[in-house]
Amino acid sequence: MSMLPQWIIEKKRDGEPLVESEIRDFIQGYTTGLIPDYQMSALAMAIFFNGMSSEETSLLTRAMLESGETVNTSSITRPKIDKHSSGGIGDKVSIVLGPLAAACGLAVPMISGRGLGITGGTLDKLESIPGYRTALSSKEFVDIVGKCGCSITAQTPRIVPADRKLYALRDVTGTVPSIPLIVASIMSKKLAAGLDGLVLDIKCGTGAFMKTRADACSLGSALVEVGRSTGLPTRALVTDMNQPIGRTAGNALEIVESIETLRGNGPEDLVTLTIALCARMLVLARAKRDLATASDYAARTLKSGKALGVFADMLALHGGERGVIDDPSLLPRARVVKPIMAASTGFVSRVDAEKIGKACLVLGAGRRLTTDTVDHAVGVSDMVKVGEHVTAGQSLATLHSNRDDAMFEAEELAAAAFSIAGAAVSTAQPLIIEELTGEDS
Amino acid sequence: MSMLPQWIIEKKRDGEPLVESEIRDFIQGYTTGLIPDYQMSALAMAIFFNGMSSEETSLLTRAMLESGETVNTSSITRPKIDKHSSGGIGDKVSIVLGPLAAACGLAVPMISGRGLGITGGTLDKLESIPGYRTALSSKEFVDIVGKCGCSITAQTPRIVPADRKLYALRDVTGTVPSIPLIVASIMSKKLAAGLDGLVLDIKCGTGAFMKTRADACSLGSALVEVGRSTGLPTRALVTDMNQPIGRTAGNALEIVESIETLRGNGPEDLVTLTIALCARMLVLARAKRDLATASDYAARTLKSGKALGVFADMLALHGGERGVIDDPSLLPRARVVKPIMAASTGFVSRVDAEKIGKACLVLGAGRRLTTDTVDHAVGVSDMVKVGEHVTAGQSLATLHSNRDDAMFEAEELAAAAFSIAGAAVSTAQPLIIEELTGEDS
Repeated sequence: MSMLPQWIIEKKRDGEPLVESEIRDFIQGYTTGLIPDYQMSALAMAIFFNGMSSEETSLLTRAMLESGETVNTSSITRPKIDKHSSGGIGDKVSIVLGPLAAACGLAVPMISGRGLGITGGTLDKLESIPGYRTALSSKEFVDIVGKCGCSITAQTPRIVPADRKLYALRDVTGTVPSIPLIVASIMSKKLAAGLDGLVLDIKCGTGAFMKTRADACSLGSALVEVGRSTGLPTRALVTDMNQPIGRTAGNALEIVESIETLRGNGPEDLVTLTIALCARMLVLARAKRDLATASDYAARTLKSGKALGVFADMLALHGGERGVIDDPSLLPRARVVKPIMAASTGFVSRVDAEKIGKACLVLGAGRRLTTDTVDHAVGVSDMVKVGEHVTAGQSLATLHSNRDDAMFEAEELAAAAFSIAGAAVSTAQPLIIEELTGEDS
Repeated sequence: MSMLPQWIIEKKRDGEPLVESEIRDFIQGYTTGLIPDYQMSALAMAIFFNGMSSEETSLLTRAMLESGETVNTSSITRPKIDKHSSGGIGDKVSIVLGPLAAACGLAVPMISGRGLGITGGTLDKLESIPGYRTALSSKEFVDIVGKCGCSITAQTPRIVPADRKLYALRDVTGTVPSIPLIVASIMSKKLAAGLDGLVLDIKCGTGAFMKTRADACSLGSALVEVGRSTGLPTRALVTDMNQPIGRTAGNALEIVESIETLRGNGPEDLVTLTIALCARMLVLARAKRDLATASDYAARTLKSGKALGVFADMLALHGGERGVIDDPSLLPRARVVKPIMAASTGFVSRVDAEKIGKACLVLGAGRRLTTDTVDHAVGVSDMVKVGEHVTAGQSLATLHSNRDDAMFEAEELAAAAFSIAGAAVSTAQPLIIEELTGEDS
C-alpha cells in the first residue's frame, strides 16, 4: 500500500531523512486538501525538533514551488534581481533599494510581505500611500517591472499556494521558528518569481527574529545553500538590528523617510545598507565587475535623483498618488504628536529596536495577529541614533498616535528604548556583520 | 489578553512546563471544538519531543477526565478493582481475570478497547460471541457489574470525550508513542469508571508496544505515579511478551481458550499471569492480607468453576449466546484450517510474538487502520510453547483463514516465528519481569 501521511510524519519524528517522493506527496496532498491541517502541523512540529538536511530543505522548497504557478518573466530582458530581508524595525530598505536597483539597470520583481508582531512589512508601508495597489495579477506585475524596472507587490493566490496555507498554519501552531520551513517559504516564492539572482539581508539583534549572530548565520547559510542547489545565485549579508534603521518606524512615516532618501537626503545607516545591497545585486547580475565599482555606481545613481523618478513611476503604475513625493501631507497623519524628552545630557549609547517595535505595535502600526488591521499613520519619528549627543530636555523621538489609551504604554516603551551615557561610546557593532556568498563554505 | 492556544504550544515546544490553567483550557477548548485539531496535533508532537513531568501528566489526566461524565458506581458495594493491559499477542487475560476477580468477591467495571496493528483487543474477542453487546450505557454497565460482579464494555461517548477525539487524532499524526499521552489516555478512563484500585499489566518484548524492559518500566512507573497523585491506588506488573500468551491468537480462537481456562484447563502461562494479577487486585481491595494468601484463593476459585459461572452470566447480561460455553461451534469458524509443520526435531527455543501478530493481521484478525473491519474467525491456534519438544513433521501451530490470497504470507510469517534448537533450552525470561508498586520509588 502507498505511504500514509502518518508514516511520513513518524519518519521525520524518528529523525530519519525524508526522500523526494515523500516530501513531494505530502506537500502536494496538503495543497490539494487531501492531507489535512492536523497532519501538516504535526509534521511541521517534527521538523521544528529534528530539522531538515540541506538536501531535504531544497526538496521541500521545490515541492512548494511546484504547488502553484510561476511568474512568466520571459518578456523582461534586464537581469532580474531581488532582495529579501528577514525583517526588522524601521526597515524600509526595499522601498529605496527596488527603485535604486532599477535605476542602475536591473529589473526588480519584488514579491513582498506584511508585518507581524514587532516586525514591519513593506506592503503595509506602501499601502499607506493613497491608491497604491498590492494585489496585482502576475501579468500586471511583470508589465510594471517591464515599464519602470521595479514592482513591489503581494504574493498572488496562484503563486506557491502551499506557502500561503502553510504559513497561516505555522502562525497558529508554534512552528514559525524553524529554519528549513523559513527557508522553503522564502526560496519557493523567490524561485516562482523567475529571478536571476537574490540578495538577502539577514537581520540580527534585539529587533530581529534572529537574536544572535550564530542564528542569523545559520539562517543565511541555509538560504544561500538552497539558492545554490536550486539554481538561484544567492548571497547574504548579516546586518545589525539592535537599533532601528533610519530615524522612523511606522508605515507612512517610513514612506516619508524613504522619499527623502531617494532624494539624496537619507540617514547614514539606511543609505549605507541600501548601497551595500544594491552593489551585491549589480555584481550578481554581472552588471559591474566588483563591489567597489558597483557601490560607487549605486551611490552616484542614488544622488542623481534617477531612483526617485523610478519610485514615482512605480507608484503611479500601482495606482498610487504620485503627489505624495512632493507633498507628504497627502499621507495619513496621526491626531496626536508628542516628543519623548531626554532626562539627562550625554551620548546615546543604545536605541533598543525591540522596544521601539513594541511601542509601534501598541500604537497600532503593526499586527499582533495576522487578522489585525494596521493604522498607517502612527509610529515613531525623529529618533536620535547611537553615538549622537543629546541635552537633557531635548527630544529623543516623536510619537504619532491615534489611540489615547495606548499613549502611556507607548511612551514608557519608547523612553525605555533610549540609553544615554555620560561619555561618548564607540558604536562597536558594525552595520554589516558578515557576508555569506556560499563560495567559502 | 488571555492565552492564545499557540502560546501554550510554544511554551511546551520550548521545554517550559505547562501550568494547570493552560492544560485545562487547552483540553477543554479541544473537547468543545474551540481549539482545532491542527493545534492539538502540534501540541501532541511537542509533548512527544519534550515530554511532561509527572505533575503535568496528572493535570492532563484530570483535564481529560473532566471533559466528560463519570460512571456513577455508588450502587456497587463491593470494592471496584480493574485491570488494564498495555496489549500483546494472544492476550486474553482480561476475559478470564474479570470473571475470576468477580468470583473472588470484587466488582470489576472494565472499560476495554479494540485492537490496532498486531495488538488484539478484548472487545474484538468478546464480539466474536454472537449477540455480545459492547455499546452499553453507563447505567446498563453498572447494572451488569451489580448483578454478576463483572462487565467488559466499550468506552461510552460521554466518558472522557477528549480521549476519544485525541486518540483518533494521535493515530494519524504520529503522536501515539508518547508516555504522558498514553498515561493520560489510560488513567482518565480508569478514573471515570470510579475505581477503588487498578492493576496494570505492562507488556514487554517483540509483541508489545514497549520492546525493552527499561521502556516498559518507564511507562509502568508513570502510570503508577499518576494513579498515586490522582487518588487511584495502582500497581503494575511488567510481563514478558516475547512469545504469545497461551496457545491461540485471534478473536474467536481466544474465546475458546479463555473458556477452557475458566473451566480449569488453561495453558500454564495464561493461568499463572491471571492468578498473579487477580492476587494483586485482591490485595489492593484489602480483601486478602498478602499476595500468597490471595494467590492461593484465586487459584482455588479458578479451579472451582465459579468464575466460569460469572462469565456465563456476564455473557447473557450482555446479550451474548450463552451456549458458546458448551458448544464452541456456535462461534465463527474459518473456512480453511492448515497446520504449520516442524522442519526439524528438537526443542522450541523461540516463538516470536510479533511474527504471530503479523500473521494474524495478514489473515484479517486485526486492523491496520482504525477503520478496518475484523474477521473474528481467523488466527492461529495450537501453538507449541518455548521449551517444548517437537518432532520433524509435527504441527507447530494451526492457521485459520478465510482469505486464500493471504495464506502464503501468513504461513511464511507463522513458520518464521518458531525456532527449534537441538538441545533443551532454559526459558531464561521469566513471565513476570518486574513489579511496580509506587512504594519503593
